[in-house]
Amino acid sequence: MIPIGKAARAAAYILALAPTDVKNTALRWMAEAIQQHSAEILSANKKDMELAQQKNLTAAFLDRLALNKDRIAAMAQGLITVADLPDPVGRILAAIKRPNGLQITRISVPIGVIGVIYESRPNVTADAAGLCLKSGNAVILRGGSESFYSATAIVAALHEGLHKAQLPTTAVQMVPTADRSAVSEMLKMDQYIDVIIPRGSQQLVDHIAAESRIPLFKHLAGMCHTYIHHAADKEMARKIVLNAKMRRTGICGATEVLLVDQAVVQSHLPAIINDLIQAGCEIRGDEQTVKLDQRVKATNTKDYDTEFLDAIIAVKVVKDIAVAIEHIAQHGTQHTDAIITEDNKAAEKFLQEVDSAIVIHNASTQFADGGEFGMGAEIGIATGKLHARGPVGLEQLTTFKYRVQGNGQVRG
Amino acid sequence: MIPIGKAARAAAYILALAPTDVKNTALRWMAEAIQQHSAEILSANKKDMELAQQKNLTAAFLDRLALNKDRIAAMAQGLITVADLPDPVGRILAAIKRPNGLQITRISVPIGVIGVIYESRPNVTADAAGLCLKSGNAVILRGGSESFYSATAIVAALHEGLHKAQLPTTAVQMVPTADRSAVSEMLKMDQYIDVIIPRGSQQLVDHIAAESRIPLFKHLAGMCHTYIHHAADKEMARKIVLNAKMRRTGICGATEVLLVDQAVVQSHLPAIINDLIQAGCEIRGDEQTVKLDQRVKATNTKDYDTEFLDAIIAVKVVKDIAVAIEHIAQHGTQHTDAIITEDNKAAEKFLQEVDSAIVIHNASTQFADGGEFGMGAEIGIATGKLHARGPVGLEQLTTFKYRVQGNGQVRG
Repeated sequence: MIPIGKAARAAAYILALAPTDVKNTALRWMAEAIQQHSAEILSANKKDMELAQQKNLTAAFLDRLALNKDRIAAMAQGLITVADLPDPVGRILAAIKRPNGLQITRISVPIGVIGVIYESRPNVTADAAGLCLKSGNAVILRGGSESFYSATAIVAALHEGLHKAQLPTTAVQMVPTADRSAVSEMLKMDQYIDVIIPRGSQQLVDHIAAESRIPLFKHLAGMCHTYIHHAADKEMARKIVLNAKMRRTGICGATEVLLVDQAVVQSHLPAIINDLIQAGCEIRGDEQTVKLDQRVKATNTKDYDTEFLDAIIAVKVVKDIAVAIEHIAQHGTQHTDAIITEDNKAAEKFLQEVDSAIVIHNASTQFADGGEFGMGAEIGIATGKLHARGPVGLEQLTTFKYRVQGNGQVRG
Repeated sequence: MIPIGKAARAAAYILALAPTDVKNTALRWMAEAIQQHSAEILSANKKDMELAQQKNLTAAFLDRLALNKDRIAAMAQGLITVADLPDPVGRILAAIKRPNGLQITRISVPIGVIGVIYESRPNVTADAAGLCLKSGNAVILRGGSESFYSATAIVAALHEGLHKAQLPTTAVQMVPTADRSAVSEMLKMDQYIDVIIPRGSQQLVDHIAAESRIPLFKHLAGMCHTYIHHAADKEMARKIVLNAKMRRTGICGATEVLLVDQAVVQSHLPAIINDLIQAGCEIRGDEQTVKLDQRVKATNTKDYDTEFLDAIIAVKVVKDIAVAIEHIAQHGTQHTDAIITEDNKAAEKFLQEVDSAIVIHNASTQFADGGEFGMGAEIGIATGKLHARGPVGLEQLTTFKYRVQGNGQVRG
């Protein structure tokens, strides 16, 4: 692993200075190479799929692993989208003229070398490579062992694009073994890797967090709440809750827990429960919710701390906004939480006091997404508080330095 | 330690919402209490000094530990200075109106709970507490065992100020034991502490980095370089080098290594060497430098990697700017590096290619300081790349969240 780290560090120096048009050209060549080599990528993916099918993996897992023409086209398109985004490097973040004449400029620069550790989705290979390249970072990719052949074929295509644009192919490297010990080694290479982005299950993230000597942009569970305040518009609440839970149940921005003010349990909750059940959602409610509808199951103690990522929602009636905020502080994961209310003072209190990366008033928690935030593309949602918080897009893959320009100043 | 962590977390929620004027009032009361209790603080410091004198500590160490009326007044004044700075919380960092009508605002918020681990200077107690309070963070302070009584007396005064302003005294807590195991426990409390700021020797920082489960704003050695390019103005070079090395030799922004272009060795270097020696600096030079002046000692292999923090400088002649940049990449600590040149193209190359927190053209490396950057006060210089890089002032003690305001939007 050390030679990979060294090569990445060397590539990072070159990428940091690469002009925008060279990076964009590389991204477009990479997209073209992905398309041109789709047959090889598909046949590598077939090999992964065959091995995976022998391992008794879930249907959902196999679906994430599978590639087809459309998914390959989407991967290529993703690279073109990133090429079209503005370059995040070289932005002037602050400029100060000091009384002594020093001109101090804070300017965005790449972070350096980024390690991405992910699980079964082979498309992460191209997505992560594209975002890291555009932000001037070298990347070391470590995919799940199940997607090893697919990722290898994708990286081969990406290298062709880099080569054509005369950028070092070591800008995008893949850990060349599916052996688990390589991850442990990678997590100790703080000399060569500046940040690790883990993408995958909670277990994967926990495991990496426990072992890593390198800072992480970590994505903890998305225990998202939607809170219906007593001043909520009923029809808006129905529409938002249904979307927040059911639009896609497997994403981190899906609402997992519904909190409802005592005062609107009778007026608002029955229709919301009915909407959800009609849409195929299982409801796990507290005592009051169970009484409202016989189709509601009783919650168990774990339900308010479970990221279902499925068509299941836990419902809890709360006395007031203070109890709702307290519940979120106790059970949330500082990802995304929403209030529905027509009372702007209550909304303001919620937005101020809930300490989550994304706090929402009168909209669906499913908007927790870099694309929806106008970032164009993202590599995940960070639930940590430092550097990157919320969607991790190109900007979050940069850091900054201070350029100080003088004409002979010395300090007194 | 766990009750301290829990109390800090609870205090952090209150501080995050504390209005600017309440925080400023607390800071002013804290300053007043420091002054009022100067007798108690001085007598506690006397106790620390007596114990320290029995331990065979260096004179420099004892000087850092010692308090007197002036140093106490400076501590109090530091708190007032922080009160006068703008509140870093609630700044709008970005505002986006999305086509679907969602209004997304990125707004600065406190980080939460900050742990500060430091060595002998008792004034760090008040400085760190002031910066953390102003930025809405709770702080857990762990000073060196040698300053235990001084820090305890200072914290007692700070608590009086917090109490008068009706803020929780748990906003500023001190680890109540000089026992080393408390640090180990602290470094595992990632549930309660969001970031650790180590301030002190390289050993302290290395030790903390190896053990911490919590992200660090770490300050590695300041291996600062000043590079005299062949197009440097000789008089400017003399003035800057003398200041960069000798103004104060014990600070992290002091130049430790002088790189000189081959082309100006004969014309520029003799006068610079003479200036430094006249000012009491020891010169350790490579072969060419030794030949210039018989007072120059020969370097050993470690000199280009040693943060002397003393009146010693290592000198190396380089072929050109590329070699200088390469030397800095190999031996620097990404802290602060400067070029002296009248050639703007060369300066631009240096500022672009040197990957340090602070890169300087035609000024002294001793400007690497939050105060000199207009930050008003700082808690250290971070040499890591994430979140805080360079001087860590109030702004760097905040993070952000996204506020999303809608009127019923659901995701399609």
